[in-house]
Amino acid sequence: MTDGTIRLRVVNPNTTRAMTDLVGRSARAVAGPGVHVDAVQPTTGPASIESHYEEALAAVGVLEQVRLGEADGVDAYVVACFGDPGLDAARELARGPVLGVAEAAFHAATMVARRFSVVTTLGRTVGRAHELLDRYGFAGACAAVHACDIPVLALEDPASGALERVTAACRAAVEADDVDAVVLGCAGMAAFTDRISAAVGVPVVDGVAAATTFATALVRAGLRTSTRSEYAPPPSKPVAGVLGGFAIAPTPVLTAVTLA
Amino acid sequence: MTDGTIRLRVVNPNTTRAMTDLVGRSARAVAGPGVHVDAVQPTTGPASIESHYEEALAAVGVLEQVRLGEADGVDAYVVACFGDPGLDAARELARGPVLGVAEAAFHAATMVARRFSVVTTLGRTVGRAHELLDRYGFAGACAAVHACDIPVLALEDPASGALERVTAACRAAVEADDVDAVVLGCAGMAAFTDRISAAVGVPVVDGVAAATTFATALVRAGLRTSTRSEYAPPPSKPVAGVLGGFAIAPTPVLTAVTLA
Amino acid sequence: MTDGTIRLRVVNPNTTRAMTDLVGRSARAVAGPGVHVDAVQPTTGPASIESHYEEALAAVGVLEQVRLGEADGVDAYVVACFGDPGLDAARELARGPVLGVAEAAFHAATMVARRFSVVTTLGRTVGRAHELLDRYGFAGACAAVHACDIPVLALEDPASGALERVTAACRAAVEADDVDAVVLGCAGMAAFTDRISAAVGVPVVDGVAAATTFATALVRAGLRTSTRSEYAPPPSKPVAGVLGGFAIAPTPVLTAVTLA
Amino acid sequence: MTDGTIRLRVVNPNTTRAMTDLVGRSARAVAGPGVHVDAVQPTTGPASIESHYEEALAAVGVLEQVRLGEADGVDAYVVACFGDPGLDAARELARGPVLGVAEAAFHAATMVARRFSVVTTLGRTVGRAHELLDRYGFAGACAAVHACDIPVLALEDPASGALERVTAACRAAVEADDVDAVVLGCAGMAAFTDRISAAVGVPVVDGVAAATTFATALVRAGLRTSTRSEYAPPPSKPVAGVLGGFAIAPTPVLTAVTLA
Amino acid sequence: MTDGTIRLRVVNPNTTRAMTDLVGRSARAVAGPGVHVDAVQPTTGPASIESHYEEALAAVGVLEQVRLGEADGVDAYVVACFGDPGLDAARELARGPVLGVAEAAFHAATMVARRFSVVTTLGRTVGRAHELLDRYGFAGACAAVHACDIPVLALEDPASGALERVTAACRAAVEADDVDAVVLGCAGMAAFTDRISAAVGVPVVDGVAAATTFATALVRAGLRTSTRSEYAPPPSKPVAGVLGGFAIAPTPVLTAVTLA
Amino acid sequence: MTDGTIRLRVVNPNTTRAMTDLVGRSARAVAGPGVHVDAVQPTTGPASIESHYEEALAAVGVLEQVRLGEADGVDAYVVACFGDPGLDAARELARGPVLGVAEAAFHAATMVARRFSVVTTLGRTVGRAHELLDRYGFAGACAAVHACDIPVLALEDPASGALERVTAACRAAVEADDVDAVVLGCAGMAAFTDRISAAVGVPVVDGVAAATTFATALVRAGLRTSTRSEYAPPPSKPVAGVLGGFAIAPTPVLTAVTLA
Repeated sequence: MTDGTIRLRVVNPNTTRAMTDLVGRSARAVAGPGVHVDAVQPTTGPASIESHYEEALAAVGVLEQVRLGEADGVDAYVVACFGDPGLDAARELARGPVLGVAEAAFHAATMVARRFSVVTTLGRTVGRAHELLDRYGFAGACAAVHACDIPVLALEDPASGALERVTAACRAAVEADDVDAVVLGCAGMAAFTDRISAAVGVPVVDGVAAATTFATALVRAGLRTSTRSEYAPPPSKPVAGVLGGFAIAPTPVLTAVTLA
Repeated sequence: MTDGTIRLRVVNPNTTRAMTDLVGRSARAVAGPGVHVDAVQPTTGPASIESHYEEALAAVGVLEQVRLGEADGVDAYVVACFGDPGLDAARELARGPVLGVAEAAFHAATMVARRFSVVTTLGRTVGRAHELLDRYGFAGACAAVHACDIPVLALEDPASGALERVTAACRAAVEADDVDAVVLGCAGMAAFTDRISAAVGVPVVDGVAAATTFATALVRAGLRTSTRSEYAPPPSKPVAGVLGGFAIAPTPVLTAVTLA
Repeated sequence: MTDGTIRLRVVNPNTTRAMTDLVGRSARAVAGPGVHVDAVQPTTGPASIESHYEEALAAVGVLEQVRLGEADGVDAYVVACFGDPGLDAARELARGPVLGVAEAAFHAATMVARRFSVVTTLGRTVGRAHELLDRYGFAGACAAVHACDIPVLALEDPASGALERVTAACRAAVEADDVDAVVLGCAGMAAFTDRISAAVGVPVVDGVAAATTFATALVRAGLRTSTRSEYAPPPSKPVAGVLGGFAIAPTPVLTAVTLA
Repeated sequence: MTDGTIRLRVVNPNTTRAMTDLVGRSARAVAGPGVHVDAVQPTTGPASIESHYEEALAAVGVLEQVRLGEADGVDAYVVACFGDPGLDAARELARGPVLGVAEAAFHAATMVARRFSVVTTLGRTVGRAHELLDRYGFAGACAAVHACDIPVLALEDPASGALERVTAACRAAVEADDVDAVVLGCAGMAAFTDRISAAVGVPVVDGVAAATTFATALVRAGLRTSTRSEYAPPPSKPVAGVLGGFAIAPTPVLTAVTLA
Repeated sequence: MTDGTIRLRVVNPNTTRAMTDLVGRSARAVAGPGVHVDAVQPTTGPASIESHYEEALAAVGVLEQVRLGEADGVDAYVVACFGDPGLDAARELARGPVLGVAEAAFHAATMVARRFSVVTTLGRTVGRAHELLDRYGFAGACAAVHACDIPVLALEDPASGALERVTAACRAAVEADDVDAVVLGCAGMAAFTDRISAAVGVPVVDGVAAATTFATALVRAGLRTSTRSEYAPPPSKPVAGVLGGFAIAPTPVLTAVTLA
Repeated sequence: MTDGTIRLRVVNPNTTRAMTDLVGRSARAVAGPGVHVDAVQPTTGPASIESHYEEALAAVGVLEQVRLGEADGVDAYVVACFGDPGLDAARELARGPVLGVAEAAFHAATMVARRFSVVTTLGRTVGRAHELLDRYGFAGACAAVHACDIPVLALEDPASGALERVTAACRAAVEADDVDAVVLGCAGMAAFTDRISAAVGVPVVDGVAAATTFATALVRAGLRTSTRSEYAPPPSKPVAGVLGGFAIAPTPVLTAVTLA
């Protein structure tokens, strides 16, 4: 913004409004002065992301929102799902930095602890968490990834007992893995952070908070994604069928996305 | 098929018909007796895949075709783009094995050589190649990934000099990297394999051939993707907007995809 | 063979006939049309292979059989012992591809699962299994190697309770290690594969089946071991003493082995 | 501070005032609203740090300043020397987060690029840079560490041609290593960042800026070093001789350091 | 020495005389003919080393003693604390080889076993042990690092039950981790080695013995620390304040340290 | 020996007498007081070892000699070929420690330098060198393995210019790889060590010297190969054919080998 305010956009990759509101609140709570946060969600995609299949669909929605964000002059983005869907593709589209919440959480955990464990939702997401740990260089710092078998959309339901179960899983991880921090493996756990940290006695890292403050940090430090090679804007090219609106126009001006 | 024939489907993730025909021919040339090969392409997606952005769009098309393939009784799939787009998601959908061409090429190269180099198209795809090498465990066996700055769709144009440039890049890689095999980093190079191998004097691995024969091998060995946890069928869940046809029905019966 | 049939030879590195017959049957069961499988064993070597010492002795026998196979026009070899004895040396001798059963099993497991565990015979073989996992790039994909303290030659004795014990070890590994596949760590377990897979509910990988179908795949894909440097035929040179028959003649023509 | 301002202290581990002033200015330029930055240096230690020997001496000075900072109510620390001297020890002393500039620069580089190279001062510091890359998990993301044979204290002397030589080394690294970002391997290069980035066309990461904004980010996200085990306050214990002032008092109250 | 005797100095980095005596006895017991062993301790530093903070202080004392040792014509040094404090800095000062006891113990363990576990004192030292395992290349050979919650200075107190607890921890580690050797993670355990090895039935490695014999081995093999780049003598430079006696004189002649 | 002398046997795995004499001299030159060194060679095996094939044959000869050595009361063994043939198997047979010269050289190099390169004979041996670097944990410390295309048996021929070529290759490696030590990749280079080190100005590590002094060190430190599991004596078992003399007798008493 012209007054020096940093415009940070949190993209919820799924299409559940309550989750979008949650991650927006979480980001605003930590952004600090001089940062304007908004939170958006795609017009298309799954209600939650608990499989590779849903993640592939959700990546399309992330790209839709980043294209729209570029037209709005957004300075930095947070992709608010622990699988970091569409992250590298979003970097090709955005002028400013883009951070995923898994990525940011892993970075933060190693800055305040020697080793951490991850506590996530369903067991089927554990493989993706390991893949991201390898991708970002944190496999050696992560002792284990634990699932507590709670569907993503149950996290916000007080009757689900989710807070209690996630807290218990975090406590068990600290003891069994002998780690000095825990990473919460789902953006939907953002509201639990303080209570779990108080209960377990170690730093508990929520990726939404970490990504929000780190993306701001990169903007302040004058750093944006390299455009030298891999992350240069994608080439202009036809896109067939229902995704035709995602074609990149021949000129470097990005057109608005027109889905359906 | 009821006569014991293995039905193998090659999915070209882009929407260029000539490329689909090419990978189909390449697969048929090596499949051997008792295997029926067909080659398909999505109804939607980019004309070629040279960026993370296009790869994210193409993954949707791969999933479309795998869902249709399941209705057709396909026994095994090959995802015929060197970025292996949508591979893990496709495994959640398919009853039989699914192999990407990068994955298969890396496996094959280490079975016939100590170390290999990759020769690919554009420099911007090198990062993804390294990511896949790490993902599959072959980073230690790969000496280098070299780009020869040829757009994917120019590969089939004899006037482009593509064969000569790729051959030169392979020869240079063998000498500079001191490797004993080369992996071709694009499904669109499949027709070059024999000529480059003859010219350079080392095994040259085309991922389409490797994935076709390895997928057949897995079927014959009675192996299919595990459904225990990560690769179990995705949960039933609403999908909003233009991708709504990709919603998984509540019953385990997969419905046909209906993309507008 | 001149009619296009692929001639595949399974080399049992030990000298127990029943084991040779077993691995031959296992290979034939999966080879598919157009492949002729035979199974051989050395004239010299230990009755089974459960130590580094026996593996070193067995490697000599593998080389004897590969030299004989070259005279017979064999197209591809499987080395049917989980320590992959003599594998790199055999590659120097053979015109076609040579696969070890540990190597092939690891490759196959990562094509159908994220992570696997190995269930093997004696605890003293665990170190070699880890060494091979490192050698082939699969250390990151393997959660653990478990021994079930059954001597190799007891595997085929129904009275030994071997099937039950191996099945129990596989089931325990899947739960304790949270893996989605199991690799059987001995060629002598080949006959157990289907029953254990049915009992445990995950893909169970037998290396004999995997190596047989993968070696066939390499032949069909036109791939053979590189002769550029490391795997070129060994130099001609005197060999003293009782192993004198293994001397390589000065001409590239391989002579028949004449072990007293 | 009681008004919500974050108090961030930059500790220059060497005893050269001009360097302390430089890192203070660099930090203030990026800290953003709501952060008060000061910069300090030890009362004892070497004039610059270009060897393991000097780094070991400098670590004592870092600890002196962190102990004083705790008495002053500092919220977060930056250790402003690329060897990150005394970092883990400082974490045991500080209530808030402590970041080293090498550590922070590596984190930042991987957030805006796939791979980076490091350009540092003297060749003898390259080994330490590699050790830190391993320690923090970034060995795979770093292509190379290059020295340009400029002593640390010459960096601020315009007559030394240091800017030109560092710029040339950065440009050469980007081309030779095919990386999309460069990390400056000395806090004394902080003033060069913008000019080198403009000249070379890729993100150039100065660790002082990165550590300043990341340390602020951790405070805003509510994260401080874990006190569970490794980074708990050091035990109370006698310290003999001239370092006696560093003894930790039996009560948890940290005493002021009194170095003669 | 002029008669060919090797002069080996064991530097106890802490300031507890009983520990210095212990490591001196341990070294003498294994040094063999032709080696003269003495044991020294710094004039300044903590009574024991159980934190990063104490290790940073202790490094200064190690450097003091190595500088004095150079004046005395010492041929090789052992740094007798399991954190290997000041090791790289000491190498810059010494003409002959310098070995840390952690480093030496890890080397020795992998020469007599496939995998080992470490049994150490306090849990807070586990992180440093892992860091050293990574630094020296032995992370893959070490199954686990176990703490038995015994303060360093309690090790020599028979009433503490330390021998019994360390023995029990070693036995448990061998069974739980399935390792074939144990490394004792504190120089203060040197006197326990034989009794624990007899009780547990696997090689038990004491770093003082390993470092003493390996340092002697390097001298006999004619090997000393490289002076080409990283480990060249530190540059001459002013050192401010109480550590001023550590300044390196402009001539290559090392001056005696004058602390206090 | 009863007088406390350590009996160390150097086993040359090939059958060339001049090489046996060379490695014996090299070992004696560094062994120091209280060590009796002898050097032996097998009755069978290749004249030199430059391929996997020859290494497999040579392993049998190593085992023959270790079995004989056990009858002679040998305290420690050195396997004097850079491929470390039969090393793990020899450990199962020997009461005392067994070291390979590649293994020992890598250990020594990392004790006196940060990073080293290897200079070896023929290009075809480079793959095995990398395999051993991985096996022992030194891949990260080794910058490169260079071949200088000299057959092993030409090393001792002054007319071959071998010393000059190896020296040039070492000098080039130090500059190109920026390493501070060089490992000689063939036991046959043992006589070159001092001259190359003097010429190049960095530590040059000969594995025969390193293994001799380290094996002695292990004996003095009271360490021998673990017999807990992997390296326990091999089981008693029939061995068929010409290798029948290698059968292990049912009693723990090792019988003399009777080849031919």
